[in-house]
Amino acid sequence: MTIEKMFGQVLKKFRTSNKLSQEKLSQECGLDRSYISLLERGLRQPSLTTILILAKVLNTTASNMVHDVEEIISEDNQN
Amino acid sequence: MTIEKMFGQVLKKFRTSNKLSQEKLSQECGLDRSYISLLERGLRQPSLTTILILAKVLNTTASNMVHDVEEIISEDNQN
Repeated sequence: MTIEKMFGQVLKKFRTSNKLSQEKLSQECGLDRSYISLLERGLRQPSLTTILILAKVLNTTASNMVHDVEEIISEDNQN
Repeated sequence: MTIEKMFGQVLKKFRTSNKLSQEKLSQECGLDRSYISLLERGLRQPSLTTILILAKVLNTTASNMVHDVEEIISEDNQN
């Protein structure tokens, strides 16, 4: 799996656990809804600033989101 | 301070504590030395993949590096 797809999974997990639609998340972040959609589908790679902005709205930290990506990498490597 | 400059500080801290020159780090990462220099000076923003690659060579995790950036943000907000 690509890093982009792993981040997309993590983003979607936090968005849904916050009960936010892509539309609502994009409004609260000031990012395009289409960009959120591309990120969730693993078609774009987030910059550090994007991760920090998303984390704030999603009531978590950027390091937490990155840690979740690293867990998926480590599971992926075991397969 | 910008996010780019904060990440640059964190990168330089880990590079020097690993006793690596920019040249050596760039060779081990497969990234351009000039790009490492731009990152350290806060003139470029790393993608998630770049942070993951750097962290591996610097014997840390990407989440650790991002956590250090978040600490600088929080100190910065208190000033």
